[in-house]
Amino acid sequence: MEKFELHILGCGSALPTTRHFPTSQIVNVRDKLFMIDCGEGAQLQFRKSHLKFSRLNHIFISHLHGDHCFGLLGLVSTLNLLGRTAELHIHSPKGLRDLLVPMFEFFNKQMTYQVLFHEFDAKEPIQIYEDRSLTVTTIPLRHRMPCCGFLFAEKQRPNHIIREMIDFYQVPVYELNRIKNGADYVTPEGEIIANARLTRPSESPRSYAYCSDTIYLPSIVEQIKGVDLLFHEATFADEDAPRAKETFHTTATQAAWIAREAGAKKLMIGHFSARYENENVLLKEAVAIFPDTQLAKETLCVSV
Amino acid sequence: MEKFELHILGCGSALPTTRHFPTSQIVNVRDKLFMIDCGEGAQLQFRKSHLKFSRLNHIFISHLHGDHCFGLLGLVSTLNLLGRTAELHIHSPKGLRDLLVPMFEFFNKQMTYQVLFHEFDAKEPIQIYEDRSLTVTTIPLRHRMPCCGFLFAEKQRPNHIIREMIDFYQVPVYELNRIKNGADYVTPEGEIIANARLTRPSESPRSYAYCSDTIYLPSIVEQIKGVDLLFHEATFADEDAPRAKETFHTTATQAAWIAREAGAKKLMIGHFSARYENENVLLKEAVAIFPDTQLAKETLCVSV
Repeated sequence: MEKFELHILGCGSALPTTRHFPTSQIVNVRDKLFMIDCGEGAQLQFRKSHLKFSRLNHIFISHLHGDHCFGLLGLVSTLNLLGRTAELHIHSPKGLRDLLVPMFEFFNKQMTYQVLFHEFDAKEPIQIYEDRSLTVTTIPLRHRMPCCGFLFAEKQRPNHIIREMIDFYQVPVYELNRIKNGADYVTPEGEIIANARLTRPSESPRSYAYCSDTIYLPSIVEQIKGVDLLFHEATFADEDAPRAKETFHTTATQAAWIAREAGAKKLMIGHFSARYENENVLLKEAVAIFPDTQLAKETLCVSV
Repeated sequence: MEKFELHILGCGSALPTTRHFPTSQIVNVRDKLFMIDCGEGAQLQFRKSHLKFSRLNHIFISHLHGDHCFGLLGLVSTLNLLGRTAELHIHSPKGLRDLLVPMFEFFNKQMTYQVLFHEFDAKEPIQIYEDRSLTVTTIPLRHRMPCCGFLFAEKQRPNHIIREMIDFYQVPVYELNRIKNGADYVTPEGEIIANARLTRPSESPRSYAYCSDTIYLPSIVEQIKGVDLLFHEATFADEDAPRAKETFHTTATQAAWIAREAGAKKLMIGHFSARYENENVLLKEAVAIFPDTQLAKETLCVSV
């Protein structure tokens, strides 16, 4: 299986604690690194996770609250000090560019690389990234300002060739790509060898959904159906459900309901309120609804 | 002795490492907290040092490089989330206000308290803070942009009363303040009791000098003569002296020379370049010139 991993750089919420950094994650898809949110200290945690800045080209910001983007200033400056030349793409809801550009210009007199902003409307699902093996699509959320999650979805990969059958029929090399993509093989004698005899299906494409910050929002279930890993915010415990609603956040129980309804394979909860010294209370509530739940934790790395 | 302590929140330089946070310190004078510089993550380190935000009213920024001020965004936002009402004073060279105010306004729609900027010209020593027991004066430095250090100086305190003598002469309570401040006592019979018989001198006022970032600058010695504690940057080791000069930084040896020439009682070095995995090389070089040197370190607390 090719690499598809999630690194947690920070999983606290807005108020700092001695236990957590504010929100930031790295999705590693075949050694391409994608950052989701960039709270204060994200670059320090990035280093601590032994990741390589040179592999990071895209940053996705869910919404313009400080605990999700204040780390951009330091990160962009550091990449400049390191003499980066590759473009850096920052995808976000509208408004970030106008805020950051004056800061970037003042604090980095001579930029060695370009920062390109891609601003989107967070109201509708939009595919904001695509490469050969992956798409990233926004997941509209409901928070106190325009906000969205992100769905990282692998593309269906070509079938695997059955080496023995290829040898047996002496299929020439130049035919292999067509066959991987489903074509039958016609021998020089005109015999048709069905594709199913030459290949076996590749693994199902995997997907990761990031949902933070948001009020409990069952309407997202449709879009994240069957994800392999769901990260959902669980800022509050059940007893603080009124506070969750008031501040447009989710409880651990509600996050677990979303995972269950979506048929997610695994759930990770995070964006913990500073009020919980021991987050096992959140874990316990979520596990009661969705057993395969785990707590996010700084420098944790899991396979999708 | 009343409290006069230095807390190191971060002592790295611009490039992040897994060992250090960027520059930030807290000076605690009789439980009033003063922040010097506010690199990314300063608020997290503040919490880790078990300090109280409510005791922090003044922040002094040495210069407008990101590794000395990017933490202000998060800190100011956090104080707002906590519902602070007291004014927060930010002292800095010119330019910070115009950069930060648009960010503060966007990220903190409703501020519960006022941030007041006090911008100064970093070229001349200026007293920028004074209270009953303390003054703070800028120390002009030479860096790649306007930059200064800060001299925290206790005021001379009133003499201590010798309780036995006061009792012996039956000095009335209302005379005590005058006597503490040096007056003689005249008995009802007209006898003059010399102040020296009634009091003993208070402790000498203590002082702390913070000098970072700067090229080796012997001209500061005059201003920091006899400080109890000198923090001086020592970004580089001797072998990198050309690089130090080129980037307007100081070597450990040079920092030690400043301490020795100034007759400082103690030296702490910091602002370490990311290139030194083991900073003992810096310590060794400094100790050869000025034995009472120590390395700065995150969450370290020393008495001035």
